[in-house]
Amino acid sequence: MEKDEILKKCAECLTATRKATPLCPSITNSVTINFVANAQLAAGGSAAMVYLPDEGEFLAGGCGAFYINFGTLLPVYEETLPRTMAALHKNNAAWVIDPVGLGIGSMRTKLVSCAKQYKPSIIRGNASEIIGVAKLWGLLSEDESNKSSGAKGVDSTDEVLDAKNAAIALANYTGGAVAVSGKVDLVTDGKTTVLCHGGSAFLPLITGAGCSLGGVCAVYAACGGAFVGALTATLVYNAAASKAEKYSKGPGTFQPNFLDEIYNLTTTDLETATIELI
Amino acid sequence: MEKDEILKKCAECLTATRKATPLCPSITNSVTINFVANAQLAAGGSAAMVYLPDEGEFLAGGCGAFYINFGTLLPVYEETLPRTMAALHKNNAAWVIDPVGLGIGSMRTKLVSCAKQYKPSIIRGNASEIIGVAKLWGLLSEDESNKSSGAKGVDSTDEVLDAKNAAIALANYTGGAVAVSGKVDLVTDGKTTVLCHGGSAFLPLITGAGCSLGGVCAVYAACGGAFVGALTATLVYNAAASKAEKYSKGPGTFQPNFLDEIYNLTTTDLETATIELI
Amino acid sequence: MEKDEILKKCAECLTATRKATPLCPSITNSVTINFVANAQLAAGGSAAMVYLPDEGEFLAGGCGAFYINFGTLLPVYEETLPRTMAALHKNNAAWVIDPVGLGIGSMRTKLVSCAKQYKPSIIRGNASEIIGVAKLWGLLSEDESNKSSGAKGVDSTDEVLDAKNAAIALANYTGGAVAVSGKVDLVTDGKTTVLCHGGSAFLPLITGAGCSLGGVCAVYAACGGAFVGALTATLVYNAAASKAEKYSKGPGTFQPNFLDEIYNLTTTDLETATIELI
Repeated sequence: MEKDEILKKCAECLTATRKATPLCPSITNSVTINFVANAQLAAGGSAAMVYLPDEGEFLAGGCGAFYINFGTLLPVYEETLPRTMAALHKNNAAWVIDPVGLGIGSMRTKLVSCAKQYKPSIIRGNASEIIGVAKLWGLLSEDESNKSSGAKGVDSTDEVLDAKNAAIALANYTGGAVAVSGKVDLVTDGKTTVLCHGGSAFLPLITGAGCSLGGVCAVYAACGGAFVGALTATLVYNAAASKAEKYSKGPGTFQPNFLDEIYNLTTTDLETATIELI
Repeated sequence: MEKDEILKKCAECLTATRKATPLCPSITNSVTINFVANAQLAAGGSAAMVYLPDEGEFLAGGCGAFYINFGTLLPVYEETLPRTMAALHKNNAAWVIDPVGLGIGSMRTKLVSCAKQYKPSIIRGNASEIIGVAKLWGLLSEDESNKSSGAKGVDSTDEVLDAKNAAIALANYTGGAVAVSGKVDLVTDGKTTVLCHGGSAFLPLITGAGCSLGGVCAVYAACGGAFVGALTATLVYNAAASKAEKYSKGPGTFQPNFLDEIYNLTTTDLETATIELI
Repeated sequence: MEKDEILKKCAECLTATRKATPLCPSITNSVTINFVANAQLAAGGSAAMVYLPDEGEFLAGGCGAFYINFGTLLPVYEETLPRTMAALHKNNAAWVIDPVGLGIGSMRTKLVSCAKQYKPSIIRGNASEIIGVAKLWGLLSEDESNKSSGAKGVDSTDEVLDAKNAAIALANYTGGAVAVSGKVDLVTDGKTTVLCHGGSAFLPLITGAGCSLGGVCAVYAACGGAFVGALTATLVYNAAASKAEKYSKGPGTFQPNFLDEIYNLTTTDLETATIELI
């Protein structure tokens, strides 16, 4: 696909999503759960969050796309996440995982490992997390596995381009897409790999910039599929953040302004976005 | 009661609440728990949230009014909610339930069923939820039961007026009040039924507009009783939302502006509100 | 130490923290968890929140400082908090406790009692909570124990100066610092006791003003130690709140403005702060 064709598909995805307001349920961390829901609503979707196994299974049955974020795990997740992921896989549903905090505690490793067999449509994370998942799933050579310097809590210590091979390997394995967030963002379906510019220095200063991007990936994947969905979400985030930054005097006011800009974004903003095919 | 008399009682309730700052504890979902607390504070109340059985019971003992929201259930709720509701009933306390997400999972159905025997003072929900509770509690004829098209996740697919009979049936059963939220809002104590106009198209675009209204119903019920409390909360929400919408450029900035307007609302705003007796 | 020397140390702590962006994990309540994280980021730190025992232990191993807040307890905390506190103590880590809601339920009393043996570096709370901890830990005479009128939910019914002896007793016991929040704020290491002026009447009207101050105490303690860390956090909060109040029309817009001001605060703002040695 050419750049213009890709951007046109993203603009069409934006229009279709706002018309359909797809229900995109989440199992997500309590730190940023409110921001995820508000970002999904601003992006044109409908949100619903749950914790219990049968609720995850139920919503996996009739959703536009599902978002699973591995932050702030609760004991019940040991049952909820495998059952929900199995239901999503069985229903051939679109779903997104966000392996936040990979490396902290044993349950997270176990659950992200468990996700492998169910092949999530989109994997979204920072560079350290994407390298971490590819390593955990045995998709990297030993050489490449040793490249990552690991995460610092929930923050990346790796650069986005360092995660390129890991992202492509994951996308080829799942047959879906992978989105790596950082100063520059990378989205790939294993064949086409796109770099996205824009965004704002305020994004890493508000908690949940990444989590809410994952939730919004689900919203656009419901109407655009994995690759176009992940890319639309990334472009929307970069364009909205650039705009909001211009008139925000700090990270506090940046957040509501950013939600406003997601809500007010036009298809022209997407069609004129700056992307690079690599 | 005449319109003017009703509105005067609501204005008095606002004044009394701000003076008393009643403690209104909640057991509520993690998505909107912060917004619920901030709305309760802006409305003139004091907030405290808990999850554990003995904490719910303890706070049921000395509160102005209690708010129970059935979203994002945790395993411990199976014990916490019945014990807390029993304590509220025993203490003859004012309390509000918000049956959000009714239809998702088995525990929610079980817990909302359990609430029946304890007769909550106020039931607040969207049209689909109110019809759902009335159906679950066996208060509707089969004909009426079949009217609802059900919820889409946590959103209503029914119109407010379609829930009128269900709302009246519930209020007559509990001896309290029911508030149905939507484009127009309905508040009834079974005898007097009021339609409230105003609000904002931004309200459904911020997560927790309904949940926080439930929390604020508790705040005003602490000083005004069930019907006046539910109506005051609804009028405050409609007036504050109309004002905030005028200078908000999207749902992101609408939320903080809306909280400001709740805080700054005057008794005149309530005395001049547009209501309709039906 | 003289006033000027103290303020200079706080200004140096601010500069050092922004350079180091210390990772300050939290186990904290779900009501204000988002605000805690955003305040920590605005203050110059990095945030990560967890609930599970091995995750708390893991993060206790490599953190700048750790924040433990006793609000919205979950059943798993019975294991998570003792194991995390033991790990922090063993690692000689800096950590902060916030005994919010002390008096509500049995688990909170048990866990705050358990914290005694591990001697947290900073205890932050309102006057009622600080008196409550000192009483629970057996550090007050019977006379002084009877002074407190107790908390109203999560709000204080005591004045800050009433908690002076309790705060000093706690600091002498732990060898760390204690910060008491209220209209005037008190910070002590048992030897030096400082009163801080400033702040805003909007602070008690936004949920989590206290919780997020606790999280920010951890951020500055990571670089400045217990006393300077607690005092820097308190001064930052007072200065940022005073500034934000000037152009906020209510508690809704005050919150994002307040975060902006924390982010934009200068060392000059700290060097010119008004404190009183008592």
